[in-house]
Amino acid sequence: MHVAEVARALDLLGVFAFAVNGAFTAVEKTRVDIVGILSLGIITALGGGIIRDLCIGSVPPAAFTDRYYLGIAAGGALLAFFVSRLPRLLQRPMLVLDAIGLSVFAVSGAQKALAFGLSPAPAILLGAVTAVGGGTIRDVLIREVPSVLSSGLYAIPAIIGATITVLTVAYDPRLAVWGAVVGAVVCFVIRMLGLRYNVDAPTGLRRGERHG
Amino acid sequence: MHVAEVARALDLLGVFAFAVNGAFTAVEKTRVDIVGILSLGIITALGGGIIRDLCIGSVPPAAFTDRYYLGIAAGGALLAFFVSRLPRLLQRPMLVLDAIGLSVFAVSGAQKALAFGLSPAPAILLGAVTAVGGGTIRDVLIREVPSVLSSGLYAIPAIIGATITVLTVAYDPRLAVWGAVVGAVVCFVIRMLGLRYNVDAPTGLRRGERHG
Amino acid sequence: MHVAEVARALDLLGVFAFAVNGAFTAVEKTRVDIVGILSLGIITALGGGIIRDLCIGSVPPAAFTDRYYLGIAAGGALLAFFVSRLPRLLQRPMLVLDAIGLSVFAVSGAQKALAFGLSPAPAILLGAVTAVGGGTIRDVLIREVPSVLSSGLYAIPAIIGATITVLTVAYDPRLAVWGAVVGAVVCFVIRMLGLRYNVDAPTGLRRGERHG
Repeated sequence: MHVAEVARALDLLGVFAFAVNGAFTAVEKTRVDIVGILSLGIITALGGGIIRDLCIGSVPPAAFTDRYYLGIAAGGALLAFFVSRLPRLLQRPMLVLDAIGLSVFAVSGAQKALAFGLSPAPAILLGAVTAVGGGTIRDVLIREVPSVLSSGLYAIPAIIGATITVLTVAYDPRLAVWGAVVGAVVCFVIRMLGLRYNVDAPTGLRRGERHG
Repeated sequence: MHVAEVARALDLLGVFAFAVNGAFTAVEKTRVDIVGILSLGIITALGGGIIRDLCIGSVPPAAFTDRYYLGIAAGGALLAFFVSRLPRLLQRPMLVLDAIGLSVFAVSGAQKALAFGLSPAPAILLGAVTAVGGGTIRDVLIREVPSVLSSGLYAIPAIIGATITVLTVAYDPRLAVWGAVVGAVVCFVIRMLGLRYNVDAPTGLRRGERHG
Repeated sequence: MHVAEVARALDLLGVFAFAVNGAFTAVEKTRVDIVGILSLGIITALGGGIIRDLCIGSVPPAAFTDRYYLGIAAGGALLAFFVSRLPRLLQRPMLVLDAIGLSVFAVSGAQKALAFGLSPAPAILLGAVTAVGGGTIRDVLIREVPSVLSSGLYAIPAIIGATITVLTVAYDPRLAVWGAVVGAVVCFVIRMLGLRYNVDAPTGLRRGERHG
């Protein structure tokens, strides 16, 4: 299986996971109608990849040229709209979906950036941006503090997953598929462990907290 | 009249309408000086088109290459700044201006996306993004909930207008001008009817609302 | 010294100043961990330039192709993270750093836009966008009203500095380096005077303020 196909397959899995998650978050956190829910689901699903594609010069972005992206995003968001009318069995699956989207976008974003000729460090950064970008735009629109700023281990697993992918490709390009799979799994595991044990990253001291 | 000229003429009408509307909204909703008012007017007027142009690969965006865009946006915002010192006769004209901007941008955005080779579905999406993008950026900057999420029929008429345009072109490219005019008029009428009768789109159920 | 080198040197100075300032602002204004602080520092430092580069078609943006950008941004943000644990000696240096970033980005942004073939007015606008863009994204993410909207003389000195640069190049391209230096110095002085004497730009009248 070619690495570009792997990246696309991972991307589409992430699109679905983030569309469901984004739409569901919209229903939970704010008062929006079905258009708002669909919009927020689609933005969460496609936003990170669009930013990545604009930055690497892959224009028009895959979200607009590959019909599966928009179709899957809209389908996932619609599904979430109807599921949102069921009782609240869904908090844990939502976190799992979010972690899946985070993991596969970190990896596919980094691989696509490498494929467009970027160096390792920017590729890792763009992998992380792909992973957290859509959710950040959603959070800004519904006026929540973005997860990437507020919740403990969110960007860190994405950066680790992207780094594993990029280093694997640097070591031997033929291992790209394995690098993607291992990177995504490691990102997913760290994210879930962080949620399970409520791990936080160190913070800076603010004025009010400096004791006498 | 060539379709590109029609799209540009509609675009410039939308730029003026949104610049006045954006600047006036800035004065109404927040405490900003003349620079902020001009900035918000220009961003409302040009933001949606810039996002569209970046996504379809029309770089630099028309906003930076066609001098009428920036000139009309700045002029409209300045006009609104001075008009804002008059008494409040202006609420209804503001809603009309906003509906005009919404309608013409939905149509011109979809047509430009088609002209750059995008498929019908992404072209419709980008028409809607062109229509609601500038106002959404403005609302984020002044920390309001974006209209596209909060107000009943806002994105829906834009999507309908863009769809009419795109389907007309798909049926017969020679009808593009008619498709643009009909699409814009239908969008405008639906938006005004929605305002008149205060129509809302269906919403998702949130937890607190689920009955015992 | 070639004008492109001058623009790059100024850009890198601005990247460092804004990275420190952005990270420090993050610590002061909100509750974020080290990842959030680094993210906000890097976004403040690189955001304006990325918007500029996307708009002029310099893709991938310099932030992703020139390794000094990301390295200096990350280094500056890390430095600010550790410095934030010291007592508050730092308010004045922060404002100076912000004024430095504003000044050099206004000038380097306008020059790069000219170098990519944009006309004077859009080049001035993009200079100002480069100068205020990163800080505006940061403020949106931490849910502050952007400085460009709320604080007296912020965008105006950037526009003046960019205008001086652009007019100098229009008069004689061989004077580009001088135009950059004079533009940056004038912008810096106006910004600092505005802070010193607390100058505000004129505002629009809002309803509540219209007297009887």
